[in-house]
Amino acid sequence: MKSLLSDEFAQHICQIVSEETGYRLIFVNQEGTIFAAYDKERIGDFHSVGKKVIDGIIEEGVVTQEEHERLKEQMGDEAPRAGINLPVIYKGQRLANLGVGGDPEAIRPILGLTRRTITLYLENKEMLDHLTNTIESINGHLQSMLEKTEEVTTGSKEVERSTFKTQNTTEASIEKVKKMEEVLKIIKQVSSQSKILGLNAGIEAARAGQAGLGFAVVAKEIRKLASESEDSVAGVSVILEEIQEIFQTIQEQVETNTAIIEEQTSSMVEMEHLIGVVEKAMTNLVAETKKT
Amino acid sequence: MKSLLSDEFAQHICQIVSEETGYRLIFVNQEGTIFAAYDKERIGDFHSVGKKVIDGIIEEGVVTQEEHERLKEQMGDEAPRAGINLPVIYKGQRLANLGVGGDPEAIRPILGLTRRTITLYLENKEMLDHLTNTIESINGHLQSMLEKTEEVTTGSKEVERSTFKTQNTTEASIEKVKKMEEVLKIIKQVSSQSKILGLNAGIEAARAGQAGLGFAVVAKEIRKLASESEDSVAGVSVILEEIQEIFQTIQEQVETNTAIIEEQTSSMVEMEHLIGVVEKAMTNLVAETKKT
Repeated sequence: MKSLLSDEFAQHICQIVSEETGYRLIFVNQEGTIFAAYDKERIGDFHSVGKKVIDGIIEEGVVTQEEHERLKEQMGDEAPRAGINLPVIYKGQRLANLGVGGDPEAIRPILGLTRRTITLYLENKEMLDHLTNTIESINGHLQSMLEKTEEVTTGSKEVERSTFKTQNTTEASIEKVKKMEEVLKIIKQVSSQSKILGLNAGIEAARAGQAGLGFAVVAKEIRKLASESEDSVAGVSVILEEIQEIFQTIQEQVETNTAIIEEQTSSMVEMEHLIGVVEKAMTNLVAETKKT
Repeated sequence: MKSLLSDEFAQHICQIVSEETGYRLIFVNQEGTIFAAYDKERIGDFHSVGKKVIDGIIEEGVVTQEEHERLKEQMGDEAPRAGINLPVIYKGQRLANLGVGGDPEAIRPILGLTRRTITLYLENKEMLDHLTNTIESINGHLQSMLEKTEEVTTGSKEVERSTFKTQNTTEASIEKVKKMEEVLKIIKQVSSQSKILGLNAGIEAARAGQAGLGFAVVAKEIRKLASESEDSVAGVSVILEEIQEIFQTIQEQVETNTAIIEEQTSSMVEMEHLIGVVEKAMTNLVAETKKT
């Protein structure tokens, strides 16, 4: 609570009160020490009446000129001077004692108004301090937000790179499939040539008569194998077509991902911009409130 | 500027001044109308001296009891009463006129102090208003940030889904490659059977002597074709191995992406949490400052 009522503000109030009313105000703290005074040489002095007021031993410290004269006869120079001391009470706590020398009845309204000024100020000041503290803690959160954004941006870039690689890989594999098709064509040609060969061998065997009987079996076998080979090539072609479709599907998925990732990256750029704007506004606010 | 000095605050000051000093304060606005007064029935009345002060026609409006008596003889009941009127000047602008009836010299310090209280308050109030406005504009930015975060989260989920599909597709294609290997094995077997057949046919042709000459040519051709087929199958196997490697690479890239996207999603969840925390703190601040 003490820090709410700063030395600088108390000194400013002493100045204002003197300018407007001519009275020479002092502020006494919890230790009974004068911490602000129109007469600056009094700062640091102990103030016994002020200490009693702030400790709540007495509600107020009021000494009239007559009382002062009377006390002087008993106590000599130790006698308190005429004047009035009132506590500044904020949220139930005695924050400081305000003192002014002179006729108590003349000073009371001035001092009363002064402490109302102080409590009015303290209410706003406390709110400003609270705002400043909250804003500073929010600034910490913004820093974390910026870090998270950077993490996501870095991640997006990695995914983008990796997706780009996948795209290249898929393109390369489509080339492979084409090559494979060519080789399969060769196998197919071989099969069909084998078939023709088997037919010719059959004709040759028939022509050879009895001597060609063994050949006829071989020719039949050739046709059978060529046909098997042809069937297998057809099977491989079907699978190859399926693989090609798979690569196309992967390529489409990669394209979709690339588009989404590009959007994400642009969202993150906007996000970083927004955080920057908020951070700047916050920093300015903290700087401005610290001036008060 | 006008809104800075609210009717409520002015009324509160009238109350404070009366409580502390017994004086009955009035506030006069730019139109010369009393907008706050200890005696509330005066609110809404026109105040000619206050109007002159606020327009800057006169620096202050001071009427002593003697002046009042003198003017009364000339003007009758129209004569201004004894009292003092001082402007509240904030940042060079006359915001209001403060007026109190009675002995000007006795009232001047009270009224001087009162207007210092008001300007002190206005400085803080202006800062608080500025803070509140900034915080409200920041709240708008936070809303945009939340939207961006949601966009990115949605995007990440889409990429995740799409990546999961690619993973499934790739796994399916590895199955295809295996099937293809099996079929190629069949072609290879056919080729090697053809080769053996070609060899046997060659032996058979030799055994047949002159009659087997034509057949020897066929046998040679069989071996040649079988060998070509074998070579082609070897070529296809190499390409198939490369395709398998490509699928493995894609699978690895997909796994990397999945890990990154999972991190991104968790970053975005933390981000949403942080924005929520900041938004809540901001909303609370705005609510608190609006109470003052």
